[in-house]
Formats: sequence, C-alpha cells, structure tokens
Amino acid sequence: MENAMQGAQYTATERTVPTRSAQRASYDKDVVHSILDEGWVCHLGFVRDGAPIVLPTIYARVGERLYLHGSTGSRPMRMAGAEEPGMQVCVTVTHVDGVVLARSAFHHSVNYRSVVVLGTAYQVTDPEERSAALDALVDHVVPGRSRECRPADRKELAATAVVRLDLTEVSAKIRTGGVNDEPEDLALPHWAGVLPLRKGYEAPLPDAHLAPGTEVPPHIAAVLG
Amino acid sequence: MENAMQGAQYTATERTVPTRSAQRASYDKDVVHSILDEGWVCHLGFVRDGAPIVLPTIYARVGERLYLHGSTGSRPMRMAGAEEPGMQVCVTVTHVDGVVLARSAFHHSVNYRSVVVLGTAYQVTDPEERSAALDALVDHVVPGRSRECRPADRKELAATAVVRLDLTEVSAKIRTGGVNDEPEDLALPHWAGVLPLRKGYEAPLPDAHLAPGTEVPPHIAAVLG
Repeated sequence: MENAMQGAQYTATERTVPTRSAQRASYDKDVVHSILDEGWVCHLGFVRDGAPIVLPTIYARVGERLYLHGSTGSRPMRMAGAEEPGMQVCVTVTHVDGVVLARSAFHHSVNYRSVVVLGTAYQVTDPEERSAALDALVDHVVPGRSRECRPADRKELAATAVVRLDLTEVSAKIRTGGVNDEPEDLALPHWAGVLPLRKGYEAPLPDAHLAPGTEVPPHIAAVLG
Repeated sequence: MENAMQGAQYTATERTVPTRSAQRASYDKDVVHSILDEGWVCHLGFVRDGAPIVLPTIYARVGERLYLHGSTGSRPMRMAGAEEPGMQVCVTVTHVDGVVLARSAFHHSVNYRSVVVLGTAYQVTDPEERSAALDALVDHVVPGRSRECRPADRKELAATAVVRLDLTEVSAKIRTGGVNDEPEDLALPHWAGVLPLRKGYEAPLPDAHLAPGTEVPPHIAAVLG
C-alpha cells in the first residue's frame, strides 16, 4: 500500500511478498539502494541440474542494475551466457546488525536488513559497460579505488566475465529495535536486550613490498572512518 | 588427495569441486566445523517453480547435522515436509575477513572462509530431536542461553518448524593472506595491503523493562569477550 509520503517503489510480486512478517518487508527504492550500497558481498543463488547452489561473491550497484563478476571459466559465469535465456538467479544481500535476546526462547531474534533480487542475469559484452561495471565493483568496496590502482590489461579483461541483473523484482526485509517479549514474561529474571554487532575495519595491514613510510592514502582512510 | 597428517575428510563430489581456485577448497571436517561454528547466519537456497530463492536464516550444527528453523507457515519450512522427497537445499555460511587491495584492479580480492552444504532438508518431527535442535539454535548464538531463558511452551513449539540437513556433501573455501600482485607491479605507487574487518559485539543494549542495576550475566559476557 502506498501513501503520498513514500518515495519510488518496486512493484511487489507474488514472489516478493513474504509468507510471514509482512510488516518487515519494504519495496522502497531508497531503502533497497541503501542496503545494497552498504554491503559488497552478496549470496548468488542459481539452479544447476535442478538443485540450488548458493555462492558468496562481490557485487556493485549502478543505478537500477547489479553487476557481478568472475572468471570466464567459473560455472555461474558460463551459465549466464550472453544470449537468451541467461541464467535465473537470486541475489541476496544481508546485514546482520544485532542479536535480540528475549526472556523467552521463542522471541529470540536477529536485527537485520536484507535485500532479495530475483531475475535473469546476462553476461555483459559491451566493452564500455564491462569497463564501467569493473570499476564499479572495485569502487563499491573502496570508493575511488579504481582510479588508484592499475587498470586491467587486455589479458586480464579477457579472463573476466561480468554479468548484469536488473533491479525489477526486488524486496527488502528489515528487523530493527528491541525485545518483543510477551507481557507476562517481562518479570522473569532473565537478562534481555540487544547485542549490536561491530562494524567497520580494523587497522590496515600494509603489504610488505610497500616503500617504508608509505602512508594510507585518503581514499582508504575514508572507509576506515 | 589425503595424506597421513590430515584429519577426517568429507568426500569430494563433482558438485563440491570448484571450477577454479581449487587450492582454496577444503573438505577437512575440522575446518568445516570451525567455520560453521563461528557463524550463526546462513544463506538458505532452494528452488521454487524452477527459480532459485536465497534467504538469510539462523542455523546450528549438532555433530554432522545442521538444523534450521522457521514458522510452520513459512514457504521453505512447508516445502521441507516431513515425508519424502524433502527439499533440495544449499546452505552457505560465509565469513568475510578482509578486503585485499592490490596494486592492480585485477588482483583485488577478499579474504573469506565459506562452507557450502548441499543436500536434502527434512522437517524434524521427533519431539526430543526438535527440542534439542531448538536449544542448539539458541545456544549456537550465545552458548548456554537456552538454560537462561523461558523454554518454548506448547503453542510456541507448535508454531515452529525445524528442518535437518546432514553434513555429507560439504566443502569449505578459504582465502587468507596478503596481496598477490604481479612481480612487475610491485614498484607501482599504489597503496596495497589488507583491510581486516571488525568482528564481535558492541556494548549490549539492555531492555528497558529490566530491573535497574541488572548486570550482564556471565553467559552473555562470555560472547562479548
């Protein structure tokens, strides 16, 4: 249900309406984009010989498209050949924010934000789109990094497949906040609350071949916070 | 290939031998168990109407079995009915340990440890196994927690489905260490190294209904480290 205060929405489909906890679902494009942009590891699901396969991989968002990449020899990249019918995929991005410890075992929960993208992935063959996607994959992890390293040469480019998945059938699911215990459990003696997960990076580990005294450059310092 | 120094191994299958970076694969049971035991959120893949679906969910390991749970009304739980043929699944657990920033865009990488479990999930109906699995799911996140909260009552148990997946077709994949730049790139001026990800928990957020002065109990303090 939309109201005038909401921004642009993805159209919910039978597949993107959850069977439970529907109040946690969102189709808001800004919400989806913010979840996608905060992470850079997704879980890519595809079907092989009728069975599901789920593999972790890097992704980047460019507008209403997701890009993944891999070796041209890898199985999912080969399956997502440039021609029809592409490869049916599900790309899921999950941020785990905290553990919710309730007084009752049943109400234990997890604070999380996830996005599920359903659709067909195709290999990208246009050289300019491939190049932009590969830059985006590097920049999605460390903004600006693609200009602060040696670009891929012809041999490296030839070894790399890029696939694209349009953001059309998309939903987010979010659980935030505290403990939802039953009122009659509130007086129980058990500790209840949320354990928030740590985020971000530890101190960087410079490569042994860096010139002594090389400082961490601004584009990396920015993600270290 | 085994040698006398290796511990017990899962048997590699055509599906669990990676198409690339085979040197990163492991079938060692201790390695697999340690990766599974360190995490508690997995990505569950299943096939619906021929299309892959990947959802984040909690899991626990008990010996050579994984347990997942969910509302009896949720789609994957209904699909994993108690009778044959169960539900073909892929359960993937991923720990992202660091970002590897190379001098070349091509050699950017991620340090990670992941486990992929393939197989058929079945609903657990035996009351004792269900009860032990539900305890394990709580204790997997915070060891000892199942004895420090109110157990599920009959109505809550009736609303909860438990599914089991045996650890038979299993592999781990691990990338550790530093930058693998080409020798001719080592003199390039770009910063190179690893950005390790932060792990663990922030300070706990007590529920507002806790009695004032309630201290964090030892079983929670232990996971806070």
